[in-house]
Amino acid sequence: MNALSVKHLLGIKYLTRDDIELIFATADEFKEVLSRKIKKVPSLRDTTVVNLFFENSTRTRISFELAEKRLSADIINFSSSASSVKKGETLIDTVKNILSMKVDMIVMRHPAPGAPIFLARHINASIINAGDGAHEHPTQGLLDLYTIRERLGRIEGLKVAIVGDIANSRVARSDLWGLKKLGAEVILVGPPTLLPKTFESLGARVSHNLDEVIGEVDVIQMLRVQNERMKSAAFPTVREFTAMFGLTWDRFQRCKKDCFIMHPGPMNRGVEIQSGVCDGAQSGILTQVTNGLAVRMAVMYLVSQTQ
Amino acid sequence: MNALSVKHLLGIKYLTRDDIELIFATADEFKEVLSRKIKKVPSLRDTTVVNLFFENSTRTRISFELAEKRLSADIINFSSSASSVKKGETLIDTVKNILSMKVDMIVMRHPAPGAPIFLARHINASIINAGDGAHEHPTQGLLDLYTIRERLGRIEGLKVAIVGDIANSRVARSDLWGLKKLGAEVILVGPPTLLPKTFESLGARVSHNLDEVIGEVDVIQMLRVQNERMKSAAFPTVREFTAMFGLTWDRFQRCKKDCFIMHPGPMNRGVEIQSGVCDGAQSGILTQVTNGLAVRMAVMYLVSQTQ
Amino acid sequence: MNALSVKHLLGIKYLTRDDIELIFATADEFKEVLSRKIKKVPSLRDTTVVNLFFENSTRTRISFELAEKRLSADIINFSSSASSVKKGETLIDTVKNILSMKVDMIVMRHPAPGAPIFLARHINASIINAGDGAHEHPTQGLLDLYTIRERLGRIEGLKVAIVGDIANSRVARSDLWGLKKLGAEVILVGPPTLLPKTFESLGARVSHNLDEVIGEVDVIQMLRVQNERMKSAAFPTVREFTAMFGLTWDRFQRCKKDCFIMHPGPMNRGVEIQSGVCDGAQSGILTQVTNGLAVRMAVMYLVSQTQ
Repeated sequence: MNALSVKHLLGIKYLTRDDIELIFATADEFKEVLSRKIKKVPSLRDTTVVNLFFENSTRTRISFELAEKRLSADIINFSSSASSVKKGETLIDTVKNILSMKVDMIVMRHPAPGAPIFLARHINASIINAGDGAHEHPTQGLLDLYTIRERLGRIEGLKVAIVGDIANSRVARSDLWGLKKLGAEVILVGPPTLLPKTFESLGARVSHNLDEVIGEVDVIQMLRVQNERMKSAAFPTVREFTAMFGLTWDRFQRCKKDCFIMHPGPMNRGVEIQSGVCDGAQSGILTQVTNGLAVRMAVMYLVSQTQ
Repeated sequence: MNALSVKHLLGIKYLTRDDIELIFATADEFKEVLSRKIKKVPSLRDTTVVNLFFENSTRTRISFELAEKRLSADIINFSSSASSVKKGETLIDTVKNILSMKVDMIVMRHPAPGAPIFLARHINASIINAGDGAHEHPTQGLLDLYTIRERLGRIEGLKVAIVGDIANSRVARSDLWGLKKLGAEVILVGPPTLLPKTFESLGARVSHNLDEVIGEVDVIQMLRVQNERMKSAAFPTVREFTAMFGLTWDRFQRCKKDCFIMHPGPMNRGVEIQSGVCDGAQSGILTQVTNGLAVRMAVMYLVSQTQ
Repeated sequence: MNALSVKHLLGIKYLTRDDIELIFATADEFKEVLSRKIKKVPSLRDTTVVNLFFENSTRTRISFELAEKRLSADIINFSSSASSVKKGETLIDTVKNILSMKVDMIVMRHPAPGAPIFLARHINASIINAGDGAHEHPTQGLLDLYTIRERLGRIEGLKVAIVGDIANSRVARSDLWGLKKLGAEVILVGPPTLLPKTFESLGARVSHNLDEVIGEVDVIQMLRVQNERMKSAAFPTVREFTAMFGLTWDRFQRCKKDCFIMHPGPMNRGVEIQSGVCDGAQSGILTQVTNGLAVRMAVMYLVSQTQ
């Protein structure tokens, strides 16, 4: 199989297992390219990509922009702060205008869950979701899966804990969809205010006690404490959150011997993860970033092939 | 004739009819380039362009930036928000500094009417006005003219209505200069508070009643209701503006059968134009955007030839 | 000698005289490149540079970005306004993340003195300091030295006055280190509140009276009055500062006949320097900007060679 079953990357929920495997195989090739002295390939030489960021972002935007440059695409950056969105224009009109300038692909971050799905129904260009509210962040999910596969050799049969503010996390949702599609067991861990029982209906185990599950998992993905998203009443204090759900050095000692530690970044050191843990040999946090580049190159290349 | 009569594009007011025809002929060629798979030409390969935006802009900046990329120019983006303008430097010093870095061409948007004209007297590089206050927005005017010519086959003898907030509109002024130079009749339409009688001295018919003129025009250019520019006393409510000057479906029925509908964007749907009208077959709104790219490529190419 | 003695450019303080001479010789070559029609060389074709600006900047950022483009580097721009710094991430984590995306060189401006030195201890990529608080701005210092050498044929034995807000000026510190290394005599001039006597320990003469020294110096570097940095109590009024330390036309008449006038920009005309002076034949202010491009190309090229 040489093509994705979808024209857009809107969420991991909408990918088949074959799609994910194809993305991994393609990312393997691009990872090899990135290890060369000359890191550029001409794959998207005749393609213009617009990075449409309606929400601030550093690492995701830089990662996409570098991936686009490595693929030799032409790039247009658009951020909402300088945009006609503020002038009363609808999202569809903004995008249709940009597409009228002969743009081929859209990488889009938007605060509203489902915004890229809505757009995909109304326009012709391919859309890559770079995060839509608390819905999905599919390239983050794919790079997480890819990094686990690379480190542990497989995903099927693994037990993976995702810990923290699950309710507000698009990363948790994308990870969950992907891990289940590839046959892993997922345990979502967090306080009841940030992890309603309803998440069980998505096929995950739900735990409100990190210490109960920490000894049995092969992978722990610690989520960032997103102060900017959290309702003040979600937990009493940051200190209490750390005490109950932080990956402290103490808790790390109770992990399985080869437990793989991940974090999508940016980290709050001393809050959800302690320095000794995130900088240690079992941490894959910087590898996640490196793999993000290869995975995003793979996604953009494959999406461009479906047009 | 193969060269513009001017070194800068400061306003359509300063172009000859031959200049405009040359820009159109050149834009025709670039429009053909943009329809190819490989949309790039090496015309400005050895030219560095600075996009100097002292006012926020989305579509105009993106359109210029894409045009520059299609022409293979080197690009520097400058926006006032991060600028030494705030540190007390004069406009001329800012620009002379940038030019000292061997920059060849300036694309400039500035809130002060006449700012690019003032600059052109003091510097050597070519300047393209991308909008100066309520004075001119010449590339918008040129793309409007080009789009009318493309759709209706001619401009001479046409009757064109420009509707809305005329007093605050640089687009209206550029359209007016261009349409008159090419032999069209222009009717400016808007409430007396936004359209003083003095506009008659520019050679336009002035009307305060859209319904009176709607049946006789070949082209209608609807202007955006610019809430951010409008003095609160200019009209009672947006609703009242729509009732009197909006291009509603009802009014559209009373247009000539092939009346061509335009809007420079961004649109306020439901305010100055209704969705059924702007999305219909008689609307050239997205074509305006596409043509903007070809026209801006033509302008930059021709200006670079005069240096 | 064909290589720098240092891997990073953290400050002129850390360069040898040979390093500085090598940078000058390399800048001579790049200055010749910049005078050609095709101003590009492939020197950094396989290098990715990130411009990490934690403080606003116009001219320095544009100068670096143009230098990078002339060297054919791939460029990523990062500004703190859109950054995860605000999300609680540490500086080292931010930078390590960016480096995990296979970035080779960092150009960094930071409000904290010593930030790039701190970083250099923890990461592998080369760092070029583009200004760190009131500590150093080494490429500015180098371009100042280069411009003096170019104009006056030598630096050794010259008498150079640096005038203004010395205490808050990273430019003054970088100039001072460089001038002394190359054998010039430096006189720092400013009010006692902005120029503590302790500066004498750095090897400079300190004067609180511009009129006393103005007749004996070969070069005057006027510093910008940095309203945004100055404590309100530092001097009574801007007018009084001008009266005592401004380079007025009157004072300029009392300079040596060929005294060379410099300013790192952006200028406050009428405050620290009068228009007749900064625009005259003895002013090297725009030459400083032009030379900045060649010097930055030289620094980046030489630093890339040490990796």
